[in-house]
Amino acid sequence: MAGQAPRASEDGLIARYFAPLAGPGADGMRDDAATLTPSPGCDLVLTADAVVAGVHYFPDDPPASIARKALGVNLSDLAAKGAAPRGFLLTLALPDDWTEGWLSAFAEGLGVAAAAAACPLLGGDTVRSGGPALIGVTAFGEVPAGGMVRRTTARVGDRLCVGGTIGDGALGLLLRRDPPWATTLDGGMRDHLADRYLHPRPRLALALLLRRYARAAMDVSDGFAGDLAKMLGEGRGALVEAGSIPLSPAAAAALATEPELIVPILTGGDDYEVLCALPPEALDAFLAECSGAGIPMTPVGTVVAGDRTPVFAMPDGTHRRFGAGAFSHF
Amino acid sequence: MAGQAPRASEDGLIARYFAPLAGPGADGMRDDAATLTPSPGCDLVLTADAVVAGVHYFPDDPPASIARKALGVNLSDLAAKGAAPRGFLLTLALPDDWTEGWLSAFAEGLGVAAAAAACPLLGGDTVRSGGPALIGVTAFGEVPAGGMVRRTTARVGDRLCVGGTIGDGALGLLLRRDPPWATTLDGGMRDHLADRYLHPRPRLALALLLRRYARAAMDVSDGFAGDLAKMLGEGRGALVEAGSIPLSPAAAAALATEPELIVPILTGGDDYEVLCALPPEALDAFLAECSGAGIPMTPVGTVVAGDRTPVFAMPDGTHRRFGAGAFSHF
Repeated sequence: MAGQAPRASEDGLIARYFAPLAGPGADGMRDDAATLTPSPGCDLVLTADAVVAGVHYFPDDPPASIARKALGVNLSDLAAKGAAPRGFLLTLALPDDWTEGWLSAFAEGLGVAAAAAACPLLGGDTVRSGGPALIGVTAFGEVPAGGMVRRTTARVGDRLCVGGTIGDGALGLLLRRDPPWATTLDGGMRDHLADRYLHPRPRLALALLLRRYARAAMDVSDGFAGDLAKMLGEGRGALVEAGSIPLSPAAAAALATEPELIVPILTGGDDYEVLCALPPEALDAFLAECSGAGIPMTPVGTVVAGDRTPVFAMPDGTHRRFGAGAFSHF
Repeated sequence: MAGQAPRASEDGLIARYFAPLAGPGADGMRDDAATLTPSPGCDLVLTADAVVAGVHYFPDDPPASIARKALGVNLSDLAAKGAAPRGFLLTLALPDDWTEGWLSAFAEGLGVAAAAAACPLLGGDTVRSGGPALIGVTAFGEVPAGGMVRRTTARVGDRLCVGGTIGDGALGLLLRRDPPWATTLDGGMRDHLADRYLHPRPRLALALLLRRYARAAMDVSDGFAGDLAKMLGEGRGALVEAGSIPLSPAAAAALATEPELIVPILTGGDDYEVLCALPPEALDAFLAECSGAGIPMTPVGTVVAGDRTPVFAMPDGTHRRFGAGAFSHF
């Protein structure tokens, strides 16, 4: 439980690396707490997600990428809930072999990601992990009072849409093991998949449109099929056109080479795209506004009466189910 | 990165153990985020502190005690900032050998501690730690707008007071190693010290009085001397009467046996008492109100011009300094 003499104390680390990232309410990280007040007429939206070395990222990933992921996975939750970011707290549990070089690059990457999302650091805690690094973020956003977009409020008949492309993160992870199918992709495709695994792209610009149009929404972080199952409550299922799931050119090329990659594409994690359910009459206006805002958004299926298990209509005419929770970070 | 088949999934764990603790705004833990809105005219106060097995507690401590500590260290920060608790988020990073028995006892203890503080669970995240357990809490409180009691705002001439007794937690930790001085304490004294190490007693009832009277405050968690140094800003020091530091009968008996225990008493951690600075003219009224509320509060010194290093006037007439950061959890 002793301090590590050759390196800075916790307070020294905070002053050197994190105080420069502090936003209003953080008081320069000189206190044990920060203040935050939502805008008049707004609720705060709170979310907490942690990433662990060797579980959610590779320990030798670039520190700036790790920082971007740690914040990004939380920003993705805020976006899916319709919330605009206000700030975050950081719990940084460091392994015994941390270095100032790592920490400096981590803090710099965190600052860049926080600035890009207008989501300043408000405070936090730094501890020894006694094992791998763990980076816990609690992020705060705001919505007009009562306006948070919920997860399990879709109704039978609602149309399901998903943003961006699905499966890139999972394929980017598989790529780390040099699978045979990787050789059929060109360098740009491989780079795309690798980047999607490393760097969530939280869909912050979607928040307002989700609040306006969506009946339910969540971010896809633990696999499309499993997360869709979580969205379906008692008495509801979903029928999904597997062929309509939006794929990047890289994912489409990989799938063409190896058809069973449909399993990691639909059940792997690390998409950080938004899945939402809309009343059918709102679909056209929603898609038009997404298009106008430059946000790719694709209708993929419909909420039906059922047992919470999404059914995928495959291009070959068969129906297929993918186990919820086929992928788990836990 | 695979789920652990014989045990519940993350969602199963949440539904079984944590959903019963969920407060308003948590929506039964069925969403990826919660909402929280401060009372009209209030700021939210945010604080995050994590505890790690083998760093902040012993892995074989009772799970309910670990839960109470994880929440209590955060509630202690809220109290010192003058804030009334509103709720918390939990980041639970579990080692590979976690058991449902441990988790059940942990959740039960957490529920008891949360109910006692009127501070409900609002959400969180559960992950594999890949090492020791880590329990991260982000706690939310509220104060009237602008009313958070700050840490570094004491002025020269302010009187310093500390609540409860100092050093019990540090001696309780030392007691785990069966030191020679322990044999001179009776069983009740040993139990007292052991309990103070295990179980923070956040001084929630002090919050209102600190807002009304204190110019600055913080909770004493990393050792009285080091934390006092953190409270002192540029150009300020402190003169402390070491003999006036409030000790429990157990700590006093230990110190009588072994005078150098003054070092862990003044520099050890785990006190979770409140240190505050008051304008001299407010001292009598503050002490009277504390007394009326049944909260032990002791004047221990004065803020003086200086170099941020507290000087302790010892009972033998000498002056002594204790290194800030002699104790660190980091």
